[in-house]
Amino acid sequence: ATAGISSSDFRDAIDSSLFRNWLRNLESESGILADGSMTLKQVLIQGVDMFGKRIGFLKFKADIFDKETGQKVPGIVFARGPAVAVLILLESDGETYAVLTEQVRVPTGKIVLELPAGMLDDDKGDFVGTAVREVEEEIGIKLKKEDMVDLTAFLDPSTGYRIFPSPGGCDEEMSVFLYRGQVEKETIRQLQGKETGLREHGEFIKVRLIPYRELWRKTADAKVLMSIGLYEMAQREGLVSSQRLKPNS
Amino acid sequence: ATAGISSSDFRDAIDSSLFRNWLRNLESESGILADGSMTLKQVLIQGVDMFGKRIGFLKFKADIFDKETGQKVPGIVFARGPAVAVLILLESDGETYAVLTEQVRVPTGKIVLELPAGMLDDDKGDFVGTAVREVEEEIGIKLKKEDMVDLTAFLDPSTGYRIFPSPGGCDEEMSVFLYRGQVEKETIRQLQGKETGLREHGEFIKVRLIPYRELWRKTADAKVLMSIGLYEMAQREGLVSSQRLKPNS
Repeated sequence: ATAGISSSDFRDAIDSSLFRNWLRNLESESGILADGSMTLKQVLIQGVDMFGKRIGFLKFKADIFDKETGQKVPGIVFARGPAVAVLILLESDGETYAVLTEQVRVPTGKIVLELPAGMLDDDKGDFVGTAVREVEEEIGIKLKKEDMVDLTAFLDPSTGYRIFPSPGGCDEEMSVFLYRGQVEKETIRQLQGKETGLREHGEFIKVRLIPYRELWRKTADAKVLMSIGLYEMAQREGLVSSQRLKPNS
Repeated sequence: ATAGISSSDFRDAIDSSLFRNWLRNLESESGILADGSMTLKQVLIQGVDMFGKRIGFLKFKADIFDKETGQKVPGIVFARGPAVAVLILLESDGETYAVLTEQVRVPTGKIVLELPAGMLDDDKGDFVGTAVREVEEEIGIKLKKEDMVDLTAFLDPSTGYRIFPSPGGCDEEMSVFLYRGQVEKETIRQLQGKETGLREHGEFIKVRLIPYRELWRKTADAKVLMSIGLYEMAQREGLVSSQRLKPNS
C-alpha cells in the first residue's frame, strides 16, 4: 500500500467484496487471466474511502503483464462496485413521462438530471431490491419487484448481463430496469419538483418529469441514453411490448 | 493532501487542467456553486497518477456543504477528464457493420468489447481530432474530420453537449461521434480480427465487426448503448438521414 494507508485499512481493502469481486472477474470465463496470456504481478492499494463502517470506494494499481511481450497494460482502478438504474415511464392523459432526479454531483461540478440509480450496499447482489429501494428514496414511490423489467437481461450471456459505464478506469457494473405504469394527472403534478433524497446522507434531490419523446436530448446522463438504447431496441424486437402499461394503485 | 503525496505532486495536481476544469464547472451556469446555496470549504488531494510527465488521473475529496442545513454532500472525485467515442458503421453488400475494439480492461477484470474511444491528451479540447486519432490507433483506418457527425451536438445546451458516463464518482465527460461509410467486402474481411493498438502503451486491441442490428445485445459497454440511443433517436427526428452513406476511398 502507498504511504498513508493504515495496516487495518489495507486488510479491510483486501478483504472487501469490491476487491474480491475484482479478483473473481479476473479469473472468470471472459476474465483477463482466463487464457493464460497475461499475469498479475502486484497490486498497490492507493486509497480507501469509508462509508461509515463499510468500504465505499477503493483506488488501486494492478501490475498486469502480457507474457509474450512483457508489456504492462494500464492498470489503475477506481473501484465502487455494482449499481442499478431505473427508467420509470408513467403514462397519463396520452403523454408518457420519464421520471428523473436532479441533484448535485460533485465529481462533475454540476447539478445533473439523471435516472434514479444507486449502488448496492452489500454483496448479496440484490439488484432488483436495490432498484425498488432507490426509487422509494429518490422519487418517493413504492414499486413492486415483479413489475420491474430487467432490460440488461436481454444482453448476450458473454456480457454477464451488466453494463460497464466507464470500463477504462472504473469497475462499476450496472443493471438497468424498466418500470411502466398508468397514473392520474394528479400524480404527475405531485411528482413534478418534489424534494426527496436522504438528507442525512447529504442527498438533495428534486424530482423532474420529462416527456419521453424529448428525453434523449434533455440530459447529460449516460444512464438515460443507455436505457433508451436498450428500451427502443427491445421494443423493436418485440421483447418489450410497445404499450403494456398497468394502471397504478 | 493525504500522507504520501509529495509537495510537488500536490502543486502539479492543483495546477492541472483536470482540477482547473473541475473548479470551472463548479462556477459554471449549471454549476454547484452557481445559485449560492452551496459552499466549498476544503479539497483533500488523495492520489495523483502520472502518465509519463503528464497528470493522468487525480483522486480527491471535496467538502461541499448545503448552507441552509449545514449538511455535507458526497464529495469523492475520481478525475480523468474529457474523452471521445466513435460509432463507426460500414456498409458492405447490404449489411451494416459496427466496428469495435476488444481489449483487456483491468478495472473490470475482463476483456471487453467496446466502441473505439480515448481520452483527450491535452486541454485544447479537440474532441473531433482526438476521435480521428483514436480510430487510427485502435482500428487502423484514417477518417476525415469533416465526415464525423457529433451526435452529442444534438443534446440540449444545458448538457454542455457532453455525456457523463458515471457522474456519481467520476468527472469524465464524453462526446460521441458517428462515422458511416460504404466499403468493399475485402475491407470488412481485412478488419475482422486485426490486431492494433499502441503496444508501447500496453494496448493489445483486436478489431471486431458486428452487424449493427445485433450490436445492442452484444457488448457490456455503455458507450455502445449510448451511441445507439443517440443514433436511433436522431434518425427518428430526421437529424441524421437514415442511409446517407458515402463510398470510401
